[in-house]
Amino acid sequence: MPEDFSDPMLVLPAIADVYDATRAAHLQRLLDNKTKPRGSLGRIEALALQLGLILQTDAPALVQPQLVVCAADHGLAARGVSAYPPDVTWQMVENFLAGGAAVSVLARQHGLALTIVDCGVRHDFVPPGAPDGQRPGLVVRKPASGTADASTGPAMSHRQCAEAIANGVALVKAMPGNVVLLGEMGIGNTSAAALLVARLTGADIADCAGAGTGVTGAAFAHKVGVLRAVLHHHAGVLKPFDVLAAMGGLEIATLVGVALQAASERRVIVVDGFITTAAVLVASALVPAVTGYCVFSHRSDERGHGRVLQRFGAQPLLDLGLRLGEGSGAALAWPLVLSAAAVLREMASFESAGVSQAV
Amino acid sequence: MPEDFSDPMLVLPAIADVYDATRAAHLQRLLDNKTKPRGSLGRIEALALQLGLILQTDAPALVQPQLVVCAADHGLAARGVSAYPPDVTWQMVENFLAGGAAVSVLARQHGLALTIVDCGVRHDFVPPGAPDGQRPGLVVRKPASGTADASTGPAMSHRQCAEAIANGVALVKAMPGNVVLLGEMGIGNTSAAALLVARLTGADIADCAGAGTGVTGAAFAHKVGVLRAVLHHHAGVLKPFDVLAAMGGLEIATLVGVALQAASERRVIVVDGFITTAAVLVASALVPAVTGYCVFSHRSDERGHGRVLQRFGAQPLLDLGLRLGEGSGAALAWPLVLSAAAVLREMASFESAGVSQAV
Repeated sequence: MPEDFSDPMLVLPAIADVYDATRAAHLQRLLDNKTKPRGSLGRIEALALQLGLILQTDAPALVQPQLVVCAADHGLAARGVSAYPPDVTWQMVENFLAGGAAVSVLARQHGLALTIVDCGVRHDFVPPGAPDGQRPGLVVRKPASGTADASTGPAMSHRQCAEAIANGVALVKAMPGNVVLLGEMGIGNTSAAALLVARLTGADIADCAGAGTGVTGAAFAHKVGVLRAVLHHHAGVLKPFDVLAAMGGLEIATLVGVALQAASERRVIVVDGFITTAAVLVASALVPAVTGYCVFSHRSDERGHGRVLQRFGAQPLLDLGLRLGEGSGAALAWPLVLSAAAVLREMASFESAGVSQAV
Repeated sequence: MPEDFSDPMLVLPAIADVYDATRAAHLQRLLDNKTKPRGSLGRIEALALQLGLILQTDAPALVQPQLVVCAADHGLAARGVSAYPPDVTWQMVENFLAGGAAVSVLARQHGLALTIVDCGVRHDFVPPGAPDGQRPGLVVRKPASGTADASTGPAMSHRQCAEAIANGVALVKAMPGNVVLLGEMGIGNTSAAALLVARLTGADIADCAGAGTGVTGAAFAHKVGVLRAVLHHHAGVLKPFDVLAAMGGLEIATLVGVALQAASERRVIVVDGFITTAAVLVASALVPAVTGYCVFSHRSDERGHGRVLQRFGAQPLLDLGLRLGEGSGAALAWPLVLSAAAVLREMASFESAGVSQAV
């Protein structure tokens, strides 16, 4: 089903390999000479090294961090795959904008610039075609008002999917700072993420689907059944972009563009939970070097998340049983990223502090 | 060996049981009505509930957090139980004061008031008897310049140990705010902590001792051998206070006082790693209710730490392979404590935000 897709539509940013053996060795020496037993700051040290590689400096400073929450609706939600009605997508966007959601509270705590992107919510927050700035904190970049039902056809046309990716690219280009944190909202999007993970990793859908907003027991069996049928319907779709269009979501496609552009500009990418990690999985299938720029903030309770993290060889910073999404996990972990940068930038060396080394 | 100890010397603060079933049910209802799937913020929600219980409010505000780093030397360090020479204790205190240590960097990042307490370092940072304030950030409360070698006699006299606890109590009484974060420094103090944990939990010393600053292989076997001999030397010492005096440290005893007084004033206590957790173990053996006020910040790489955490039924916030101490783990986890308070205090309810509930 190549539809209206043609290669020139999808121009993907080029991404440099983050790893540089010389710089890595230099950074490791700096960390080893900080006044602490070698390696005693554990994964904070590995993170500090990664930040030094991404920003190509011994003194990483993280400036003007941007938390981008991409929201969209899913045609598949009509199939009863969520515990919540689809209206919750737009209601939660209103809650984000009003400052009452978890991600609003956490962004405020940490001084993160919060941008909500309507990538395809079935609701008009502003009159269609209105310019940006009508509602503070909201931008509208919607190729469609929600995806089509993936159980009966592709979720997005190739044109819509490419447009969503291009929107993500353009959003990042216009943003200041050197950090992007990924968030999302969309009733039904753990289903879309599970479908993408199943197809792109070859895992069984039962190992990729989870409770989402709270789907358990018979409802969970129903969810898995619906998703298995969707995979069957799109059995011949195997290429990453095609898979994204067939079974993904408009917010996920936008996040793919956000991640690719952020990495191409050597920004640090703080990934949230299952859905944003699935977006990174798609992005890495398109341009593998993107993962070197990603900090995985937490291991969520969604079953499929652990599978993708394992594939990336990633050990996330937090393991707190989170399964909210929105970017809440990325925001919770954010101070640890700042700490890693500060340790590398500000800690004294044994020599500079006059502290004796191990005997 | 009851020595010069008499009961009136040790007046322990009274601590109220933190748990209140009515308030807990009320807080749980509030959390369940926040705009998120029930329980989807995982352990952040359990922490929010604990903060509400400690501070007896629906809107916990954490103010003027105090990071108290207790430092002291250990006679046992002469027995080759550390990878670093004992001079590192005072050198690191100088590094704390100069702002170059990990805990200095992290306290600065988070705006934590940092107080270094010389509880018994074998070094004069100010002339003996000098009043507080000679060196900003340092207070001297030292019953002795280090402990005696616990392998040949008690580490502290009962009088010294009681004085150190009383110092901790007095320090907290003089501090503003409603949060205390615990930190420590002392070459040899993973050995003291391992001895306390072994005796107070009945665990074998080989399961309590760890690498500390980097003791591995034959040096580790030597460390365990030394510690086993210390336990044998003090075989008849079983009561918590007696155990602390015989095998503990001056910084650990001071931390016992800090924790007990903080809990008695219903302050939130953020516990760091193995040594501060061992201090809480001693404190809880003296006044069990103290643990209800403790937030365990991280699971350290020290083997004995997991054992004590298990005993407390505690699931710490972070698991990042940290083994530095100083209060660095408490400082790293601090923003998560703030986040938990903010979630309870600031998130909208389904009703107030006009968001539909699960179907």
